[in-house]
Amino acid sequence: MSEVAEGRRSRSGGGAARRAARTAVRIECARYIERNIPNLEILNEEALEIIENNAETVLQEIGVNFVDNPAALKLWKDAGADVDGERVRIPRGLARELCKTAPSTFVQHARNPERNVTIGGRNLVLAPVYGPPFVRDAQGGRRYATLEDFQKFVKLGFMSKWLHHSGGTVCEPTDIPVNKRHLDMLLAHMTLSDKPYMGSVTEPSRAEDSVEMSKILFGQDFVEQNTVMTSLININSPLTFDSVMMGALEVYARHNQAAIISPFIVGGAMAPVTVAGTLTQVLAEVLAGVAYSQLIRPGAPVIFGAFVTSIDMNSGAPTFGTPEASLITYGAGQLARRLGLPYRSAGAFTGSKLPDAQAAYESANSLNMGLLSGVNFMLHACGWLEGGLVSSFEKFVMDADQLGVLHGLARGVDLSENGQAMDAIREVGPGGHYLGCAHTQANFRDAFWRTELLDYKPFETWEEEGARDTVALASARVAKMLADYQKPAIDPAVEEALKDYVARKKASMPDSFM
Amino acid sequence: MSEVAEGRRSRSGGGAARRAARTAVRIECARYIERNIPNLEILNEEALEIIENNAETVLQEIGVNFVDNPAALKLWKDAGADVDGERVRIPRGLARELCKTAPSTFVQHARNPERNVTIGGRNLVLAPVYGPPFVRDAQGGRRYATLEDFQKFVKLGFMSKWLHHSGGTVCEPTDIPVNKRHLDMLLAHMTLSDKPYMGSVTEPSRAEDSVEMSKILFGQDFVEQNTVMTSLININSPLTFDSVMMGALEVYARHNQAAIISPFIVGGAMAPVTVAGTLTQVLAEVLAGVAYSQLIRPGAPVIFGAFVTSIDMNSGAPTFGTPEASLITYGAGQLARRLGLPYRSAGAFTGSKLPDAQAAYESANSLNMGLLSGVNFMLHACGWLEGGLVSSFEKFVMDADQLGVLHGLARGVDLSENGQAMDAIREVGPGGHYLGCAHTQANFRDAFWRTELLDYKPFETWEEEGARDTVALASARVAKMLADYQKPAIDPAVEEALKDYVARKKASMPDSFM
Repeated sequence: MSEVAEGRRSRSGGGAARRAARTAVRIECARYIERNIPNLEILNEEALEIIENNAETVLQEIGVNFVDNPAALKLWKDAGADVDGERVRIPRGLARELCKTAPSTFVQHARNPERNVTIGGRNLVLAPVYGPPFVRDAQGGRRYATLEDFQKFVKLGFMSKWLHHSGGTVCEPTDIPVNKRHLDMLLAHMTLSDKPYMGSVTEPSRAEDSVEMSKILFGQDFVEQNTVMTSLININSPLTFDSVMMGALEVYARHNQAAIISPFIVGGAMAPVTVAGTLTQVLAEVLAGVAYSQLIRPGAPVIFGAFVTSIDMNSGAPTFGTPEASLITYGAGQLARRLGLPYRSAGAFTGSKLPDAQAAYESANSLNMGLLSGVNFMLHACGWLEGGLVSSFEKFVMDADQLGVLHGLARGVDLSENGQAMDAIREVGPGGHYLGCAHTQANFRDAFWRTELLDYKPFETWEEEGARDTVALASARVAKMLADYQKPAIDPAVEEALKDYVARKKASMPDSFM
Repeated sequence: MSEVAEGRRSRSGGGAARRAARTAVRIECARYIERNIPNLEILNEEALEIIENNAETVLQEIGVNFVDNPAALKLWKDAGADVDGERVRIPRGLARELCKTAPSTFVQHARNPERNVTIGGRNLVLAPVYGPPFVRDAQGGRRYATLEDFQKFVKLGFMSKWLHHSGGTVCEPTDIPVNKRHLDMLLAHMTLSDKPYMGSVTEPSRAEDSVEMSKILFGQDFVEQNTVMTSLININSPLTFDSVMMGALEVYARHNQAAIISPFIVGGAMAPVTVAGTLTQVLAEVLAGVAYSQLIRPGAPVIFGAFVTSIDMNSGAPTFGTPEASLITYGAGQLARRLGLPYRSAGAFTGSKLPDAQAAYESANSLNMGLLSGVNFMLHACGWLEGGLVSSFEKFVMDADQLGVLHGLARGVDLSENGQAMDAIREVGPGGHYLGCAHTQANFRDAFWRTELLDYKPFETWEEEGARDTVALASARVAKMLADYQKPAIDPAVEEALKDYVARKKASMPDSFM
């Protein structure tokens, strides 16, 4: 049962395939996780019904605001909502009814079909950090991110065996004008990796660019008929849908491209300080957002999102890896499954400034919770640092290694005759040793997850080799992965067309850094 | 709902109580965890039955060895087992039947009754690292442990709010003769802390000393009628029960003191490389061990133990925080619950040499798994480093802080009217902010778990304060906790009697370092 397939190196480039065969570097990518273990269900039926009922009350009595968006207000009014200025009050049951046309699972295609991911069901798709304006590495410390950094992260993502998705804004290339950087980011994902990617959401026109460039990469017809992007639409919590994000959602929904509709919650600031109260607000917001996507185009693929942190009541800073965030994430997963929608939450979250023990505790808490809460799409699964202000090169490979742990846990328990190992127990007997027995020899290669980063050596060996901590080991691994990186083959005409599109669009408008 | 009670400072010492009242240092201790969330059940009924059936086959057809222990062999023969040399083959169902007299929960008393713990049911009791011959701190690096180190760890344990138990061999005081160090260790637990503790198991006579000293501390009658120690009895896996550990078990069972009966598993070495095979062997071993305890004294309190790691097939080193160890821990919890026994497993395990990110990832993986697998008694919950070779001062306080996360998660979701927070959602409305609202003001103090160690400050503040990593913060916290430490009050006559017992026993035999 090999869940890791060696990457197909090429669809068109025979020369690239031959070059790949000559080198010793194997670029592997695991298939997305298909869970063989149950989710942890922390809320009972009564609790779920209370929260669902309260969310309907919120929609009906308080409502949500659709800001600067007359077309949205008209759609809502026509659907039967009570529209008063920008306030949309949604009669009990209407939003849930509208959500029914959204698919419970969908395939996001990659340009390499072996990298396609099915989002929903019992699956978990892992994608890297999204959004930081800064980067950090052991050599250079913390600094503003550049396009070169961005490209390095895309390369690391392509080389990361347990990462299924290339992500979106792996860092903000701040050296490129704001109104043009989405073009360079898309070009990097499309040409430096063959994993699936996300589109731009910072302007509706940039979402259109994402669709156009995808048509160049996949072909016009293919994009009309298939989902090739999953993009991140944040809700301006509490209960507010701004026109920029809704504009991007409208573009993607019209083109049948997927959107994560995601309340952005810092508990105590954008939502109540209690878990049940936050879950109520999250559900109300997602119901309204998903319903709206289905008003745009019934059947458009969407994901129930929940980005959840809580606030440190001393400093006002967001906190990560906390028990309250975990409880909300577990509960939101149950609510998503009852709605029949794929679920996005969790990530390798931390508030730490360094990829140190704090970063690892908080990230591991979140990663474990993400697996066990039934998340289907996990953004920020590696590389996140300092509350999302920083993309860390070392933490990217540290977290990416831990994603292997999630794969191993999700495999569950093999109860085949070989898994039961009764012959081994008989062969070894009381006081014996399993290392040399036939069963161990036959199984040891695939029996245990193996780190490609962490240190298990005896103390003396470790000390002789320089007594390196995890950051030092990660720093060496980043350098090796970038040195070993090989660009996946791409039709040169397609790459040329993409570059041409980027150049034309950039020339068509003045730079803006706003 | 305050789950943290300020420590009662004194039962007898009015002067100590007054001194305590004058100081600003509050020594808090949380009540043991009572879970309001479910366990994660990874095995279905069919899987559990296969493993239980296989374990009975192992006991009946392969059997277990009781080494150098004619009395045990006689007990087994009289109970109906097939005894052949040291091999004991146990007819299908007999061991499980004998286990029925073991209690499903029991109270371990502390000398301060507020620190009593109930072990079993939905509870989780947290105890510190056990066994390392070395210590490490940021100042001195790695070195052999001394009695002074031991006493410091007991003090840190007493000062740790989320730690319910003082533990046992928090490190090996290697400067004290092997045959005498148990006396100094017991004296430290009994006088420097008022939390419950573990007894010595390295010789039956040392178990007897543990009982005798407990009688001085609690009173003769009290110890005859109550459980005041929970001690660690390792099984020499595979399927071997040596006479030293069984000798200690016999002493404790006869005195109605609790024992953790714990296979010591490095998967691939002492057990099969597969999860189901290891679970089968663990269950067979625990069935035999617990049944034996009940042959000694029906009703003696025991715990179903499982210490689980897997082996790195490259180096032969044990590994920690791995998915395979997690699956075994989850499965063993289910087997323990079906046997109606309290369950011991998990801990802040790591193979790392330093309290770095590797240590934190691996420890967080294990701690989360420990909570969700239904563990009732978690040894090694803080301070473990380097595969159990090292007790780390910094990691002790780092892990101990994370134990607060487990408390918060176990609380589950409050669905009271206040928890539902509908008034807050109404008050704030779309686009508002929760920080100032009445509900937030009324709840913020207890709403979120709060670290006493980790850094949430803005980057600039953190940098001005020295850009400290988690180890530096922990090092400062260790120093502060030891400076703030105040010895819990104890009847001076009792302390004198304990010291006298230690002095007499030490004088009665020559030093031995073997």
